[in-house]
Amino acid sequence: MSLDKIIEIASSVRKNVPLVHNITNYVTVNDVANAELAIGGSALMADDIDEVFDMVSIASCTNINMGTLNARTIESMIEAGKAASTTKTPMIFDPVGAGASRLRNETAKRILSQTSPTVIRGNLSEISFIAGLGASTKGVDSSDADAANNPVEVACRVARKHNCVVAITGTVDVITDGDVVFKVLNGTPLMSKITGTGCMCDGLIGCFVGALYLQNALDNSHDIAAATAGAICSMGLAGELAASELLEHHGYVGTGSLHIGIIDKLSLLNEDIYRANACIEVR
Amino acid sequence: MSLDKIIEIASSVRKNVPLVHNITNYVTVNDVANAELAIGGSALMADDIDEVFDMVSIASCTNINMGTLNARTIESMIEAGKAASTTKTPMIFDPVGAGASRLRNETAKRILSQTSPTVIRGNLSEISFIAGLGASTKGVDSSDADAANNPVEVACRVARKHNCVVAITGTVDVITDGDVVFKVLNGTPLMSKITGTGCMCDGLIGCFVGALYLQNALDNSHDIAAATAGAICSMGLAGELAASELLEHHGYVGTGSLHIGIIDKLSLLNEDIYRANACIEVR
Amino acid sequence: MSLDKIIEIASSVRKNVPLVHNITNYVTVNDVANAELAIGGSALMADDIDEVFDMVSIASCTNINMGTLNARTIESMIEAGKAASTTKTPMIFDPVGAGASRLRNETAKRILSQTSPTVIRGNLSEISFIAGLGASTKGVDSSDADAANNPVEVACRVARKHNCVVAITGTVDVITDGDVVFKVLNGTPLMSKITGTGCMCDGLIGCFVGALYLQNALDNSHDIAAATAGAICSMGLAGELAASELLEHHGYVGTGSLHIGIIDKLSLLNEDIYRANACIEVR
Repeated sequence: MSLDKIIEIASSVRKNVPLVHNITNYVTVNDVANAELAIGGSALMADDIDEVFDMVSIASCTNINMGTLNARTIESMIEAGKAASTTKTPMIFDPVGAGASRLRNETAKRILSQTSPTVIRGNLSEISFIAGLGASTKGVDSSDADAANNPVEVACRVARKHNCVVAITGTVDVITDGDVVFKVLNGTPLMSKITGTGCMCDGLIGCFVGALYLQNALDNSHDIAAATAGAICSMGLAGELAASELLEHHGYVGTGSLHIGIIDKLSLLNEDIYRANACIEVR
Repeated sequence: MSLDKIIEIASSVRKNVPLVHNITNYVTVNDVANAELAIGGSALMADDIDEVFDMVSIASCTNINMGTLNARTIESMIEAGKAASTTKTPMIFDPVGAGASRLRNETAKRILSQTSPTVIRGNLSEISFIAGLGASTKGVDSSDADAANNPVEVACRVARKHNCVVAITGTVDVITDGDVVFKVLNGTPLMSKITGTGCMCDGLIGCFVGALYLQNALDNSHDIAAATAGAICSMGLAGELAASELLEHHGYVGTGSLHIGIIDKLSLLNEDIYRANACIEVR
Repeated sequence: MSLDKIIEIASSVRKNVPLVHNITNYVTVNDVANAELAIGGSALMADDIDEVFDMVSIASCTNINMGTLNARTIESMIEAGKAASTTKTPMIFDPVGAGASRLRNETAKRILSQTSPTVIRGNLSEISFIAGLGASTKGVDSSDADAANNPVEVACRVARKHNCVVAITGTVDVITDGDVVFKVLNGTPLMSKITGTGCMCDGLIGCFVGALYLQNALDNSHDIAAATAGAICSMGLAGELAASELLEHHGYVGTGSLHIGIIDKLSLLNEDIYRANACIEVR
């Protein structure tokens, strides 16, 4: 059963402490590191091109997020992706804002053509862009104009095209390797009022997939999809549990406290919490 | 009445969700994004020169803050400012640390000569420098030596010189278009013990002025001044409400909790809170 | 007695508000600034090479941390270190991740050969690397393989070699000028589940050593070691007090709340708290 698998991987994160190497953005990087530590992993942030190979080499997973890309870090991202291929370590790619600027569009294409992500995660606009559909990203947020796209179809198309796991996060999160499809129903719309929930999600995926790597268990794409679904479920659980606790104690949810509550809840996740609250469908 | 105007704009922020494009510093960027989201706006952070035009084009306001400027981002800031002029979208400029280094002095001058800010916000030292007075900024904080300068006179001088709205934040915040003068008395001195309250203020101004832009209401400089005063009042309110709640619950105010409490209170601001607590004088 | 000395310096920080200039990493920079403000200092972050001399000149201490170094900022770090020598102001150096990549190893060596740190702080792996021992840093965290090294011996060796104070933080923190040895027993292992506790510690050391500078009291290396021990003790105290309060109120410690609680407790430290809780041995 997929929940057992997810709990097994979550437990393996706390036991084996995968080191995730992150080239991410300067907006949410602190939250990404704290989320990775909270879930039981270890976090490394380094983006100079002269050390990406060294860092990828010691990491269990590399997480590339183009949120605040620039001419210098784009090259580091590509080099890190190539290093992950060379060292046969997994790599997560988040095409933040793909569709919003020519630079992001070209960078996403360069990264996808020169590296081999294990998991691609984004919102519906970003993944629609990668699918070659007419995306109309509003800055780094998903656009209403893309809502007509079917997330499962879009995710499957990208998963098959790039031979990887694809996750589209939104009201319902969709995760697929092009074959099995997970839907995660955890979370709360309030999470969109905090910057970085997507980036933290990337970091958690890095930990879960990194744990698979440490167990030499990356052969089966169903397992990678389960790990990705487990990480996304963890994020959703943390958000909804934090929000409901705040609502109960205060009668309202302030977004500052929700931000901190998410990290709290990530640090306290355990088997009982997953069994009582995880809401995942598999097809 | 100006409070009605401010409440109208605040309500318009939550309704129309202005997208603010920020080229800001890496110290407080997370707080800026979360403040913008908390008040009801949307946040975009991107600083590569190759995408600033695309990003300014989709934004309702561009917020330029030279807190951790460098040779690369200075050019992006200027390009963003020019793009705002081209696209006829508003631009906020925060000359962080002007007066503290030759680089900052020259950069502030370059930005002011090559772009047309809609609002300039800073502390008394920074705005005194821009006014051409002998400023003696202590790092990024206001200097006692500049306390002799009259904030209203300094702000009016800069507003007239640069044909924009100028805000000097301090114990009493002064906002003017060179004609109408707003004084905001909200806030608490404890806010100076948290980094980024000024930067968050810039972001809030971006949201309020962005809301005016979305309503095609940037013609009247009194309205822009009111929007700026409303944003600064929102920040002050959030700080004083968070501090008084912490004091009541715990008997003391820790600055970590105050930091988070400010975001909480920003996310919960509504008409009743403005009417009960806003303290704004207009002249 | 050393506790009296530490309390005197802590009090001097709040009274004289040393300005610390930081070239640090973008992961934890917000926490560093807030920690410096919480303990009573003032924080300045600027890393463009064209302004480092100006900033070092107005600062009471410069804090250099190579956490997210890159080709550009490495040169700024070296220039800042040289400027500190020229201006006879103290400098803190944190060789984050030394041992983990060739770039970090070479950068640590360059900084140590071209500048004169007043205090070097790191974990056992990083300082072992600097001592010329075979370090095997795991990313930016200390490696088990280095646990065989004796922290007191390693710290003394580096202190004598570089004629400075050296601090190795870990379960027990060791601080020495090569002669007197302080051991700080405050803290909680939970602090390792939050990113940036080491970087915040650097910032606090900057404040304490900056306060000595403002009192013209940097001649005695025992005092610098005491200031360093005091700063590290402050960090440990804040962590253990925050954790025990959370445990008491909630029955558990979430790492998000611990993160914020540390800043809270730093902002509330006073003589009574040091006297009741500081746990420092001197030899």
